[in-house]
Amino acid sequence: MPGSQPFAERRNRLKAQVASGILLLLGNEESPMNYADNTFPFRQDSSFLYFTGVDRPGFAAVLDLDEDSATLFGDDRTLDDLVWTGPQPGVRDLADAAGIARTAPASALKEHLCRAQASGRPLHLLPPYRAEHRLRILEALGPGAPQPSAAFIRAVAELRIRKSPAEIEEIERAVATSVRMHLEAMAMARPGMREAEIMGRVTEIALAGGGGLSFPVIATVRGGVLHNHHYGNTLESGQLFLLDAGAETAAHYAGDLSSTFPVDRAFTPRQRDIHDVVLAAFLAAEGALRPGADFKDIHLLACRTLAAGLKDLGLMKGDVADAVDQGAHALFFPCGLGHLMGLDVHDMENLGEGLVGHEGRPRSTQFGLKSLRLARPLQEGFVLTVEPGVYFIPELARRWRSEGRFTDFIDYEALEAYEGFGGLRIEEDFLVTATGARRLGPPKPRTALEIEAARA
Amino acid sequence: MPGSQPFAERRNRLKAQVASGILLLLGNEESPMNYADNTFPFRQDSSFLYFTGVDRPGFAAVLDLDEDSATLFGDDRTLDDLVWTGPQPGVRDLADAAGIARTAPASALKEHLCRAQASGRPLHLLPPYRAEHRLRILEALGPGAPQPSAAFIRAVAELRIRKSPAEIEEIERAVATSVRMHLEAMAMARPGMREAEIMGRVTEIALAGGGGLSFPVIATVRGGVLHNHHYGNTLESGQLFLLDAGAETAAHYAGDLSSTFPVDRAFTPRQRDIHDVVLAAFLAAEGALRPGADFKDIHLLACRTLAAGLKDLGLMKGDVADAVDQGAHALFFPCGLGHLMGLDVHDMENLGEGLVGHEGRPRSTQFGLKSLRLARPLQEGFVLTVEPGVYFIPELARRWRSEGRFTDFIDYEALEAYEGFGGLRIEEDFLVTATGARRLGPPKPRTALEIEAARA
Repeated sequence: MPGSQPFAERRNRLKAQVASGILLLLGNEESPMNYADNTFPFRQDSSFLYFTGVDRPGFAAVLDLDEDSATLFGDDRTLDDLVWTGPQPGVRDLADAAGIARTAPASALKEHLCRAQASGRPLHLLPPYRAEHRLRILEALGPGAPQPSAAFIRAVAELRIRKSPAEIEEIERAVATSVRMHLEAMAMARPGMREAEIMGRVTEIALAGGGGLSFPVIATVRGGVLHNHHYGNTLESGQLFLLDAGAETAAHYAGDLSSTFPVDRAFTPRQRDIHDVVLAAFLAAEGALRPGADFKDIHLLACRTLAAGLKDLGLMKGDVADAVDQGAHALFFPCGLGHLMGLDVHDMENLGEGLVGHEGRPRSTQFGLKSLRLARPLQEGFVLTVEPGVYFIPELARRWRSEGRFTDFIDYEALEAYEGFGGLRIEEDFLVTATGARRLGPPKPRTALEIEAARA
Repeated sequence: MPGSQPFAERRNRLKAQVASGILLLLGNEESPMNYADNTFPFRQDSSFLYFTGVDRPGFAAVLDLDEDSATLFGDDRTLDDLVWTGPQPGVRDLADAAGIARTAPASALKEHLCRAQASGRPLHLLPPYRAEHRLRILEALGPGAPQPSAAFIRAVAELRIRKSPAEIEEIERAVATSVRMHLEAMAMARPGMREAEIMGRVTEIALAGGGGLSFPVIATVRGGVLHNHHYGNTLESGQLFLLDAGAETAAHYAGDLSSTFPVDRAFTPRQRDIHDVVLAAFLAAEGALRPGADFKDIHLLACRTLAAGLKDLGLMKGDVADAVDQGAHALFFPCGLGHLMGLDVHDMENLGEGLVGHEGRPRSTQFGLKSLRLARPLQEGFVLTVEPGVYFIPELARRWRSEGRFTDFIDYEALEAYEGFGGLRIEEDFLVTATGARRLGPPKPRTALEIEAARA
């Protein structure tokens, strides 16, 4: 993503969408682990990155729409820093690379914001998701600080949501590294191995790709726990192994894939049945991706496909459409079909799924459907995941059964045979094209046969 | 570290050292990466861990010295959480494991602190190093919140600084994993390989060890940059590769080792000369470790050994003791000889090196010596690193030369031949025993011959 061109152009398009006032873009600080100088790997804020390209801690940018000016706030390193971090580009160099005319020391931001607030002109902020930002806004503007600006959020979202060709190339690179991570996990997993070994190996591949992980790896034989970041189990014969892992490129674009495969070389008949149900839902959703199609409808299509498959297996019963309308299938699929992806793996989640993923429309409160992150008509240039799954969550099934929920749609007795099954998810990444959608990155085994071949 | 015994005992010893009032221990929150739900791996605050054993986000503990009571603040997970994280122990279970009688919801902490403040009793806080904590204290107590308590800091430091047998076992485990990381790097490094590949592989070993990294890995052919967290270079024949990396156990005790080896199988004569100078300083320091010895004196002994070796090589000149007194050697060794290690890799750095590492005595302002983190007499049970090095920092040398600094002690012309040499560091971890010191963990190659053998 070289040159200041894209950043200046993005800022110009942003300015064109917000009428007047001052736009504040706060870059991220270092995140301390267990003391100030022991930090997690630095991760820049994605909107800051998108509009400035500055990938260093301690910066902020102010776009003054009325003056038509941009200022980069930050400090040059000291001689002492030189010993620890080596020569680094100065603030002026970074501003030049971003195409920003003015620079100012970091400490000047507070006064700048106070003056803006005092002038009565609108001061547009994005929602802070780090305590450093909440603290900085509080310290600069006091309890009278403005709430996040819906106009600013919408303008940022409208730009970031449609990916440019250069961005799509970056995402393809991220997905390609992510596919390597999954192929390696499929090749290495054996009974007796620990989850942490596979987690470590896929992390290594992400790091060696020049960036890192786009989110905490899920690498587990307990796939029924949806966000399982524990790696302490040993893989046992007869189990399924679920990997949900993606790489982020050096430019911070994300990939996000899930694979589920048997710890043994081949699926058991029951595992293969569930796999085929999930694959059918995946293929139905893939086939429905195109501009104009509402992702909520595609989610519901996938849910009906899952429910029909589970009915064939005797786990569900009754009318499939009714079951999905009422949310009975959510016992097996309590989450959404997918999400936007870009600089963030859940792209722009910090801007608020209400305004971005749902375009401000009211969100369902139904268990399962309420977790759908994207529910709007697709447009060319959207990048998103498709990730249906079937999960067996014994605690949830016991609770529903004891409450007598959905006894017309769920065969709780048949379910008992699946205790310990875990969960099975298939996930790939797609670009919405002019006429449909294109899978990003190289192919990853999908069918049970392909997966078993990759295990051999 | 099983059972509530050690935690209750530690809290009792803590109470015995602070006269009266209320001690607040804030546990850490999740650290958001690029949006609230995409978090870095959770790292608990080390003091909170030491006194409660609770290794989950969102907790706090209050020890009331006057009432002789302890309260754990935190929230049970909801049914929705169950789907995402699986069944988790409740607050009561965690309090039982910590030997804490009372529990309260997280939201009750604010009122609890307000009441304590209003009562006029001393409210003892530790220094906050995360913005979440600064924000929480500000929100609960306003701008009148007390400053960190020196009495509390000293009491915590006095306990944590001497390691128990169980803690030493944990640290040995961390160092053992760290040694494996270093041996693997020595075995795998080849010309043409990228730094990121080695970084990824050692990260994998740390993760597979059941914990993770104790600090961001340094894996570089540019060892002259002391905290180089960039992994973009390709290893070239003729270069030195510097690895500074350590594992943290699942119980969060740290290891911290550095190795420097040639990208080729053997050192060049010049590399071996510098290696031997650093090794001599390392051995001199190792031999001087014992209870009662001031670590500042050991640091200066190592500096004189380095300076004498550099004089033999023609890089320094004049009287060695004078050179070190005046700080001329710091051109090559601008940092300290080592630091405390335990639950933090720089143990208790967040409590303040002034009170902990320097026991409140004034710290040197001399370039080099001011970076020494530990400058107090050693005691049995201290765990620390010894890590002398020689660094060639061209920007620093150019600056000193242009300023005419230390021309009596440094041969700037001879230095020119070392442009591009990088840096060389040797680091191991030690326990101070009753009579001397013991290296922790299995041996790691030290001599040039041993290193070359490990490369073969």
